[in-house]
Amino acid sequence: MQIIEALNWRYDTKRMNGNKIPTEKLDCILEAIRLAPSAMGLQPYTIIVIENIELMKKIQPIANLQQEITEASVLLVFASWNKITPERINEHLKRISLVRDMNENSLKLTREKMEMLLNNTVEENFIWSAKQAYLALGIGMTAAALEKVDTTPIDHFNNADLDEVLQLKERGLRSILLLSLGYRDTAKDLTIANKKVRREREKLFITLQSTIGFNATNINNKGSITL
Amino acid sequence: MQIIEALNWRYDTKRMNGNKIPTEKLDCILEAIRLAPSAMGLQPYTIIVIENIELMKKIQPIANLQQEITEASVLLVFASWNKITPERINEHLKRISLVRDMNENSLKLTREKMEMLLNNTVEENFIWSAKQAYLALGIGMTAAALEKVDTTPIDHFNNADLDEVLQLKERGLRSILLLSLGYRDTAKDLTIANKKVRREREKLFITLQSTIGFNATNINNKGSITL
Repeated sequence: MQIIEALNWRYDTKRMNGNKIPTEKLDCILEAIRLAPSAMGLQPYTIIVIENIELMKKIQPIANLQQEITEASVLLVFASWNKITPERINEHLKRISLVRDMNENSLKLTREKMEMLLNNTVEENFIWSAKQAYLALGIGMTAAALEKVDTTPIDHFNNADLDEVLQLKERGLRSILLLSLGYRDTAKDLTIANKKVRREREKLFITLQSTIGFNATNINNKGSITL
Repeated sequence: MQIIEALNWRYDTKRMNGNKIPTEKLDCILEAIRLAPSAMGLQPYTIIVIENIELMKKIQPIANLQQEITEASVLLVFASWNKITPERINEHLKRISLVRDMNENSLKLTREKMEMLLNNTVEENFIWSAKQAYLALGIGMTAAALEKVDTTPIDHFNNADLDEVLQLKERGLRSILLLSLGYRDTAKDLTIANKKVRREREKLFITLQSTIGFNATNINNKGSITL
C-alpha cells in the first residue's frame, strides 16, 4: 500500500523551492516513463528534458506564468510525433527484430497492424499518440511520488508558442503537456493545506453484478461500491 | 527502484489463469485509480468493474476475442462522461466546498474555469476526458504491477457495441478502454519469453542543454541522453 500513501502525499504543487532532484531519483522517474506500455509498443512521443533556468523562463509566460515552472528542478515536455510515418514504423519493427532476435519477415502481421495507422488522419493519430503519452505521464507521476518528488502537470498552455520556442516542428514533434518535477516550498505554497478532493468510490466505480437476461432492471444502477 | 522492477516484470498478458485477485489487492488498485489527478480535478470518467464471467463472455467478441478477457479476475471498463454538463460541474464544486469546508462563493474563479469546458464541442470534451482516463490507467497499471497483478489494456474494440452491452449511453457514458486484471498463465502464454522492447533512452529523451542565443545550432539535436 506504499503507492496509496505516495498518491495521498502528492498534490498539484503550486510553489517549488528550486532544490535539485538527485540524479538517481530523476533516472528512476525517466526510466519508469520509458518502461510505460503503449499501443503496439510504438511509444509515439518524445520527452524533452529541461533543467536550464533560462529556458524555463522562456516557457513560463507561455504557460499562464505558473510559478513552479521556474522553481522546478526539471521541466519535462511530453511531445507527440507530429505524424506516424512508414519510417517511424520501420524503425520500431527493426527494434523488435533486434531485441527479440527475430527475422523481420516473421513480423509481417505486426507490420500490417501498425501500417493501418497510416490510414488515419494526422489529427486522429495525434490524439491517439497523446493518449499514450498520458498513460506514460501517469506512470512517471507515480514513480515521482514514490521517490517523494513533487509534480505539477500542465495541459493548458499555448501549444503553438511552445512548439516554436522548442523548435518542435523541426524535430517532427508537437507539444502535448508539461510536467514540473521538484520539491514543494512548504512556506510559500498556500495550497498545501487543502484537503484532497476525489470522487467518492461509489460514484467513480460501478459494479455490474449479474447478467442473467442482461437488462436495465438487473444491473445495479446505483453503482454498488466495490471497495 | 521497486517500481522499475515492477514495470520490468509486467508485460501485456495474453493468457491468464482465472485466479482471483485478493480483495485487498483489488482495493489498492482501484484506490490508486481513484487518487489519480485530473485536469481541474473533475475525473470526468467512471469505471465499470466486471467480475461476472457471463458478462466477460459477452464482451470478448466485441474485443477481438482476446482470450485474457474471460480468463481475467476482473475486467475494468474506463468510460468517459458522454458530455460535460453544468450539473456535473456543480456536483464537483459542491464536493470541493464540502471536503474543504469552503463557501461555494469563494469558488467563483474555479467555477468560471470549469465552465469554459461548456464552450467546447462534445467531441473535444470526450477526447479531453479520455486523456485524463489514460493518466488514471497509467497509475492503476503501476499499482497492479507493484501488487504483482497482471494487466492487459485494450484500446482497440467496437466501442458502439460495448456501449450497448453495458448500457453506457443510458448512464451518460462512452467507453474508452478496457483493462484486464488477473494472473499470467505461465504455461499457456507463449509471449512470456519475449524480451521487452522500448525506445532507447537517447531516442526517447532529448535534453536541451543551453539557451544562450537559443537557436538550432546550440540545441543538442542529437538528443543527448540524460540517464
